[in-house]
Amino acid sequence: MKDKRTENRSGLLVFMSDFGLSERFVASMKGVALDVDCGLQIHDLTHLIEPYNVWEASLTLAGTMAYWPRNTVFVAVVDPGVGTDRKSVVLRTKSGHFVVTPDNGTLTFVAEQFGVAELREIDESVNRRPGSEAAHTFHGRDVYAYTGARLAAGAITFEQVGPVLQRDVVRLPYQAAKRVSQTVIQGAIIRIEKPFGNIESNIPKALFDEFGVDIGQGREFRIEIKHNGAQVYDHVVPYVKSFGYVAAGEALLYPDSIQLMGLALSRGNFAETHHIQAGPEWTLTITKYQN
Amino acid sequence: MKDKRTENRSGLLVFMSDFGLSERFVASMKGVALDVDCGLQIHDLTHLIEPYNVWEASLTLAGTMAYWPRNTVFVAVVDPGVGTDRKSVVLRTKSGHFVVTPDNGTLTFVAEQFGVAELREIDESVNRRPGSEAAHTFHGRDVYAYTGARLAAGAITFEQVGPVLQRDVVRLPYQAAKRVSQTVIQGAIIRIEKPFGNIESNIPKALFDEFGVDIGQGREFRIEIKHNGAQVYDHVVPYVKSFGYVAAGEALLYPDSIQLMGLALSRGNFAETHHIQAGPEWTLTITKYQN
Amino acid sequence: MKDKRTENRSGLLVFMSDFGLSERFVASMKGVALDVDCGLQIHDLTHLIEPYNVWEASLTLAGTMAYWPRNTVFVAVVDPGVGTDRKSVVLRTKSGHFVVTPDNGTLTFVAEQFGVAELREIDESVNRRPGSEAAHTFHGRDVYAYTGARLAAGAITFEQVGPVLQRDVVRLPYQAAKRVSQTVIQGAIIRIEKPFGNIESNIPKALFDEFGVDIGQGREFRIEIKHNGAQVYDHVVPYVKSFGYVAAGEALLYPDSIQLMGLALSRGNFAETHHIQAGPEWTLTITKYQN
Repeated sequence: MKDKRTENRSGLLVFMSDFGLSERFVASMKGVALDVDCGLQIHDLTHLIEPYNVWEASLTLAGTMAYWPRNTVFVAVVDPGVGTDRKSVVLRTKSGHFVVTPDNGTLTFVAEQFGVAELREIDESVNRRPGSEAAHTFHGRDVYAYTGARLAAGAITFEQVGPVLQRDVVRLPYQAAKRVSQTVIQGAIIRIEKPFGNIESNIPKALFDEFGVDIGQGREFRIEIKHNGAQVYDHVVPYVKSFGYVAAGEALLYPDSIQLMGLALSRGNFAETHHIQAGPEWTLTITKYQN
Repeated sequence: MKDKRTENRSGLLVFMSDFGLSERFVASMKGVALDVDCGLQIHDLTHLIEPYNVWEASLTLAGTMAYWPRNTVFVAVVDPGVGTDRKSVVLRTKSGHFVVTPDNGTLTFVAEQFGVAELREIDESVNRRPGSEAAHTFHGRDVYAYTGARLAAGAITFEQVGPVLQRDVVRLPYQAAKRVSQTVIQGAIIRIEKPFGNIESNIPKALFDEFGVDIGQGREFRIEIKHNGAQVYDHVVPYVKSFGYVAAGEALLYPDSIQLMGLALSRGNFAETHHIQAGPEWTLTITKYQN
Repeated sequence: MKDKRTENRSGLLVFMSDFGLSERFVASMKGVALDVDCGLQIHDLTHLIEPYNVWEASLTLAGTMAYWPRNTVFVAVVDPGVGTDRKSVVLRTKSGHFVVTPDNGTLTFVAEQFGVAELREIDESVNRRPGSEAAHTFHGRDVYAYTGARLAAGAITFEQVGPVLQRDVVRLPYQAAKRVSQTVIQGAIIRIEKPFGNIESNIPKALFDEFGVDIGQGREFRIEIKHNGAQVYDHVVPYVKSFGYVAAGEALLYPDSIQLMGLALSRGNFAETHHIQAGPEWTLTITKYQN
């Protein structure tokens, strides 16, 4: 089967995990993949997802996939439930990418941004590393890397992954961004961008643009940040294109590189300076002045 | 010589070191290797071995190699004695892998798990980067990366590395795991798995299986951990397949992904919670109850 | 244009940045590059440059390039002024390497060590990722990775990058190493080598050799380190080839792996032990004894 290559072969395999970079885990997955097909091109998304943080995994994966060629196979392993009954799946997105992962919420933002073309459960009776039956704690190596490699190599077709799951992917709950009034938009802080400490909200630039303010106008907006309802930050901040448009140390509101509204300190660290973190309990409010 | 490829050519070169990821060191080694043959496939095992920690290097290397194809060349550089008289060697294991390294203990667990097929000393009069004669502190780049690349590229055969060494590899001393009585097994804590904080002992599942207890039975065992003989941990822990089989925060005893007995807290960090570290002065005792 | 390959094609693309390893940034750049040409070989120099530290970026890049094949394309993105009027450029060095970067000082040590063959400004009207016009904060992905990939792939020639800039690269100011008297050399501490804590000065071994002292002679030198003129360290240190030539914990003076004079503690951390940092305000004086 190894030598009969299917048309889905991309040769591109990208790993993401919370395994860190100091242990044998990541290299073991890569060895398994290259043993399937030593011609695979293997890349890392990141292995520094906070341990067990499926939310962060989902956001990071969804924020990267658009830049990779169609048919790229992503193997995403943040798997606090390894060895239990969460399902092991492969998602084909409407954008033509594949994600091999435990279906534990990791696909939340992937499904939202790229759409679900088809979801299949991995049939471990055929798609599991031979000889690994006694190991129950490292599906990243024995199931996900192995299956991802075979798919990327064209050793199996997507159909050969296993049966179609006739249900949606598992999705984490979270508050959507919304326009509250003519002059107010509210959203959540979904991420702190390390190492810079920039704040990323889930407010799309398209929603912000309903204010009718162009980026070159030098307009300012009131920014409020609350943690479980308690005010943590309340300042008026200029809306500009990029960090260099304000003085070092000054705050700015800007559309970030994936077109979500962000906050930063030019050459500084907004999150550390103002003790801001990310998650559903952190809200961000943008208020338009009549200036 | 560069263009005459030998049958040992795998094209696969894997680096491990304690050089960290923030400096020019790792990329310099890779540049040297690609200058030997720009068609090599280069991968990282890890570069975050604790500085000078040959024990950790040996364990990490030995825990990874089995998953890589035959003929893969590993370049392992944790080299506190660089520039002194420790020998630079290439080991061919009985499993058909190659390790290029200072012979300073790094091969301890590799030799134990994969067997010594042949050990050769690197002849630096031919296997040293041309022009590097004045540098004495970076054999990783000038000797090991260069020689490893030439071997992986098939520019030299294993025999052309240098003369056979008619002795064993240098081995670090450590206490083997042993059955003390019908109901007691003792071993050492050899590693804390970062970032999860799981405990890895040197007790093989095969030795544990002499207790005659199957993993699905829901049996519990008494676990004692001592540091230089002083008790640090003493609890009864269930023996299960994986983290998800106990509640979040609960301890478990399990066979880890390389079939050594491990301890973990489900979704927690065992080592941090109980202040456990790894090394020969840390012992682990497993006692079988008559339950 | 993608399929018409130019003779500058090397296929080798090396990324350096201050983006860290935990976010989507690095993988987004790589995806863009592989979407240009999925046959590119992509490597990392480091992504752990201290945020915004152009000095460190320049030193790290210049210390690595010599080991890479001619025509390798380096994409170096430490870009505190992203979105402002610093120029985006590609440098062709006299050594035949290419560097794609904001011209903000990153090229300082590259130009000094490898020479400027030609400097061209990136014409973003053609060399910018299609569809990225609305993004202003991630030129690493949209301009530098895209242009670097096209150059490495041979999709464009160096001439097609954009017009020649008839000026020097932007250079950071710094104090050169100099011989002060028959017995005294002075220089700056340019870098602390992580994770070992070795001190790297900007004093070339060639300048030190004017003392007429051979490395095997067992000679000692007085080393003074000052911070803004205040003495921080003053000891007599042996001049040896490498760490293993002195006892563990002892200091040594040695020519480092890129032939600059360095200071280290054997199996220890000189910088941490003596609270030394790097930068233009840290000076190092070496005095020759009449012993």
